[in-house]
Amino acid sequence: MTTDYKGAVRPDALLTSWQDTPARQAIVDYVDRAVQEGGAQYVPPSERIAVFDNDGTLWCEKPMPVELGFILQQLAERAEQDPGLRAHQPWQAARDQDYAWLGHVITKHYQGDDSELTVLLDGILQAFADMSVETYAEIAERFLRTTRHPTFGRLLRECTYLPMVELLRYLEAHGFTTYIASGGDRDFMRPITEEVYGIPAERIIGTSAGLRYRGDDTGGSVVYQAKLDGFDDGPMKPVRIWSRIGRRPVVAAGNSNGDIPMLGYAGRPSRPGLRLLILHDDADREFSYTAGAETSIERARAQDWTVVSMKNDWATIFADESRGSVRGG
Amino acid sequence: MTTDYKGAVRPDALLTSWQDTPARQAIVDYVDRAVQEGGAQYVPPSERIAVFDNDGTLWCEKPMPVELGFILQQLAERAEQDPGLRAHQPWQAARDQDYAWLGHVITKHYQGDDSELTVLLDGILQAFADMSVETYAEIAERFLRTTRHPTFGRLLRECTYLPMVELLRYLEAHGFTTYIASGGDRDFMRPITEEVYGIPAERIIGTSAGLRYRGDDTGGSVVYQAKLDGFDDGPMKPVRIWSRIGRRPVVAAGNSNGDIPMLGYAGRPSRPGLRLLILHDDADREFSYTAGAETSIERARAQDWTVVSMKNDWATIFADESRGSVRGG
Repeated sequence: MTTDYKGAVRPDALLTSWQDTPARQAIVDYVDRAVQEGGAQYVPPSERIAVFDNDGTLWCEKPMPVELGFILQQLAERAEQDPGLRAHQPWQAARDQDYAWLGHVITKHYQGDDSELTVLLDGILQAFADMSVETYAEIAERFLRTTRHPTFGRLLRECTYLPMVELLRYLEAHGFTTYIASGGDRDFMRPITEEVYGIPAERIIGTSAGLRYRGDDTGGSVVYQAKLDGFDDGPMKPVRIWSRIGRRPVVAAGNSNGDIPMLGYAGRPSRPGLRLLILHDDADREFSYTAGAETSIERARAQDWTVVSMKNDWATIFADESRGSVRGG
Repeated sequence: MTTDYKGAVRPDALLTSWQDTPARQAIVDYVDRAVQEGGAQYVPPSERIAVFDNDGTLWCEKPMPVELGFILQQLAERAEQDPGLRAHQPWQAARDQDYAWLGHVITKHYQGDDSELTVLLDGILQAFADMSVETYAEIAERFLRTTRHPTFGRLLRECTYLPMVELLRYLEAHGFTTYIASGGDRDFMRPITEEVYGIPAERIIGTSAGLRYRGDDTGGSVVYQAKLDGFDDGPMKPVRIWSRIGRRPVVAAGNSNGDIPMLGYAGRPSRPGLRLLILHDDADREFSYTAGAETSIERARAQDWTVVSMKNDWATIFADESRGSVRGG
């Protein structure tokens, strides 16, 4: 790592997995301006809020979102226990591993049609109704700790993007507070976000099921309801970010159409923000796709957001490659 | 202040406005056990979550909750602008300063009848519909900075309880993270909580109006909807605490029946919690009342929660008395 004359690690040395390209330079320049006291674009520390989408922005979302794999496992288990469920979606698809049906659900959502998503969500909400938040956290954590990525073979929790984890640390080293604002389920990610991203449970914002308090003589518990509390995508992202933080972010990173309002919300004319759009264009090392991101890519070009090409801007994508590449160095 | 042999302030010296009574001792004992590594009641730092009700727990809620004064001012202004509103509640009561009607609304709520509360809430929600969160924060902050308490004459923001502010610092000095979980409006308090309690906006949980994102070419804004998102009282307090933090608190402080589920939720059989119930029994220095707190007082006695008597356990209630009492010392 690069050190300054006193031997301390220079913060920009935290971005070692980034190529020396305009995208990296845009990040460094933005942060330099934000921390320069008296500068025209100075941002006071309390206002240095950075929000990150999760799936496809901080870790791999292909061939399907990690959470979907978890849900399918849970639904398949229930279909095993209750044969009556097997003739109905989503249990049928879960038990038959019918990824085509599930792919359609996601594609239709991005096309603005949520009819099948509703069927899937209803099944999911039923699956976890009346479960305590602690029990859910346990089974989610077990899944996240033990399951391997179907293509890469590495553990799911090792499918985080090293350059983005470096970026989280880089921003924090400059006084930013980082949050995840995910379209995925908030409570699914919370058990491992501190370990894999260094972001604790209280800084995770995301989709959530309704909850209710079930009191008893020993303190009671919070349990899930069979209804959605909020689907944290599109225009709900700024809403839930503001609800949670009470401040408007200045840095936002996303990778799909669902992130457009969040990216637009970061910064304002009087205080420019840094908006990063991750482009999945590396079929060799990860995946190459633009489905669900078409409008966000257009918007990024039109509004001068910083597009991050996984292929060209990232020297390393996953930490285990990184460990390989520095071997003996 | 008491200092240790190295000259550092000893954390228990932070509780100088507390009398040396069993209530103070219960707090100190609990915290000592919680931080003792290897002890049976050790609580890891990440689990040291402390939640505080606001009105009547951290600051004065009589003769009426501070927020109600703000709302009445806003409603009265609207009734001035729009004479058609004046014949209807809640504008009529606001314009006529009819505190009797408003008192009934609160009393009925604590009796389980929310019919008039709904009328009041509808008026409030209409008053702020389509306002941006930034504009609301500005007018709330202006009110909180400039308005005086009707009985005491001191500024509202000086009506915080010094022993409780000391307790916040005391807990933080021992690695606890403090949150406010208020039945009052989250966004009303946020502009001044950092200044008066040392708790920043992102650690304020409370009642909230629905929000929506209104996009535009310059980043858009988050604005209020004319509907309630969640009334953060009673069994909703544990729900919103868990949603927000992702952890179960170990310390909770409240002062009314609406705080019972939150107090019950703090701790569990395997990890005892500290539950504080503030008793308003000091007619000379503050107010003496139990209306709306009857059941919580019974529960506290039955379940061995720590009852804090303002009269007997607090040497000082408000900071300006404190400044007076140490004058020349």
